[in-house]
Amino acid sequence: MNKTIILKSRPKGTPQLSDFEFVDEKMPEVMQGELLLKTIFVSVDPYLRGRMSDADSYVPPFELNKPISSGIVAEVVESKNENFKKGDFVSDRLEWKEYQISTGEGLQKIDPSIQPLSLYLGVIGMTGMTAYMGLTQIGKPKAGETIVVSGAAGAVGSTVGQIGKILGCRVVGIAGTDEKTEILKSKFGFDEAINYNTTKDMKKAIADASPQGVDIYYDNVGGSISDAVHRNLNQFGRIVVCGAISTYNATEMPMGPRVEGFLIKKSALMQGFIVSDFSDKFSEGAKQLGQWLKEGKLTYEETVVEGFDSIPQAFIDLFTGKNKGKMIVKV
Amino acid sequence: MNKTIILKSRPKGTPQLSDFEFVDEKMPEVMQGELLLKTIFVSVDPYLRGRMSDADSYVPPFELNKPISSGIVAEVVESKNENFKKGDFVSDRLEWKEYQISTGEGLQKIDPSIQPLSLYLGVIGMTGMTAYMGLTQIGKPKAGETIVVSGAAGAVGSTVGQIGKILGCRVVGIAGTDEKTEILKSKFGFDEAINYNTTKDMKKAIADASPQGVDIYYDNVGGSISDAVHRNLNQFGRIVVCGAISTYNATEMPMGPRVEGFLIKKSALMQGFIVSDFSDKFSEGAKQLGQWLKEGKLTYEETVVEGFDSIPQAFIDLFTGKNKGKMIVKV
Repeated sequence: MNKTIILKSRPKGTPQLSDFEFVDEKMPEVMQGELLLKTIFVSVDPYLRGRMSDADSYVPPFELNKPISSGIVAEVVESKNENFKKGDFVSDRLEWKEYQISTGEGLQKIDPSIQPLSLYLGVIGMTGMTAYMGLTQIGKPKAGETIVVSGAAGAVGSTVGQIGKILGCRVVGIAGTDEKTEILKSKFGFDEAINYNTTKDMKKAIADASPQGVDIYYDNVGGSISDAVHRNLNQFGRIVVCGAISTYNATEMPMGPRVEGFLIKKSALMQGFIVSDFSDKFSEGAKQLGQWLKEGKLTYEETVVEGFDSIPQAFIDLFTGKNKGKMIVKV
Repeated sequence: MNKTIILKSRPKGTPQLSDFEFVDEKMPEVMQGELLLKTIFVSVDPYLRGRMSDADSYVPPFELNKPISSGIVAEVVESKNENFKKGDFVSDRLEWKEYQISTGEGLQKIDPSIQPLSLYLGVIGMTGMTAYMGLTQIGKPKAGETIVVSGAAGAVGSTVGQIGKILGCRVVGIAGTDEKTEILKSKFGFDEAINYNTTKDMKKAIADASPQGVDIYYDNVGGSISDAVHRNLNQFGRIVVCGAISTYNATEMPMGPRVEGFLIKKSALMQGFIVSDFSDKFSEGAKQLGQWLKEGKLTYEETVVEGFDSIPQAFIDLFTGKNKGKMIVKV
């Protein structure tokens, strides 16, 4: 039998295990032109929360009682498609199933000499690309500028900080535990890191960590942390709005200080994006990220949870910050 | 004697007449190299409210017990400066005085064949430039797109709408009286106009007026009107944050729906500015605005109040929308 995870109900607030259901499907048969994929690594990401709601969004919502999908690394275990052979490894947005059929369309073949293969879901996959595109295309950092990153110990945030350092900027990270802020400085090279859970006056803490003010704010969290960063923004500051995890589980419209006033006062910019907005620059980005990884300039952190059955809980744990860096399930 | 208006106290909430004081100064003496200016037209503008507070802003606040300044058209009535002669007309940021001394520095000589001279404070002055720069440099309209303008019957808003039409866009204006919405359509060529004071469901009204959604929102007001426009924004929408008059008199931090969510969902941009951010493009802008005016493509509305003593009240009246188009005091 072939285990599959379907969306049983649309989460209200924080997702619950009961929003997911495991069903056993019959093992699929491989037809001519198709191949059978065995799931190896599954990426669980905050943005999936949005697709579990039926609100208007940039991608259609997941359908109820249908499998959920996310970034997956899989092994070809049987092939009736001339472009793929048994033992190939591929990456794509795929369904939360132990095994699945593919026509090969959209599959990216990956080089198994780069290990672990979960990197293709992380620092050299969409995660790294999200960091790279948001920072370079919207933030447009200049050497000597100060970048503040929220959700800095997350997969995207820790990569943003490293790219900022490579580009000659001062980088300040915000995260939720002392263990995370320690890693930001010792492992990822952030100049300063702030634990928002133990800091009373965030506005002052950000000011202290950013003596020249904040030129770029790469925002993964939204909410009151962002309010504090906004107040430290420099003239012509740029706010890269990548995520708002603090509000993803909100059941009412999240309210906060209106931004128009400081945007005018500071001639500042605030821009949202999803990584595919910059798909015309993906090959450039992949080349650059791969090169930095090889040169040892880019490191990463993964939280790897074992077992197909752990996928829903691993996803839920994102919202309480249980992960350090990229959250991956190894099947 | 020479009447001068000083800032007596920093307004709390809506400015009051008692925040201003008229003082009589001695008529100034013209020294070698100087000239004496007689004030002809005074521009009163919402942004001056910001300078009356001592909050952090892009320009230093007005000093207490010192004259207020704004855009002024003046006549040279005496000159000991070889670059100016009696009878010349000039424009600059000048003080609220009947007469004042200038060294000539910064004064822009203006062509008196263009009448009324108040146009140099309006459609071919900083007002027109603000409309032009915000729309073209941030909004970047493409023919066929839909532009929504708030504060549309104001000096900047009515010019934005006309430029939008010249550039081939659909233009929807939002204003506060039926008289204003009528003028938007009949005089300024807006495709649709919405009276926010008589419209219950602004979100729906904007949707109805914008069948293709909103590509550009040129925002002069902020607040709940803007919330309704934001909800109609298209993918890759651009919000030009020019003003937030609805919040200028707020005594507490104005709160509203957080914007990060829709900025991400729509890959949208929100950017504040002041016109001087684009000073390197002023000569291009002035040329274009002047040409459109000559070609009859750009019209304007002025509310002209008579008398130097009327300046404070004319300024206060901006916040209740008593003006149609540019608010000018003719001295």
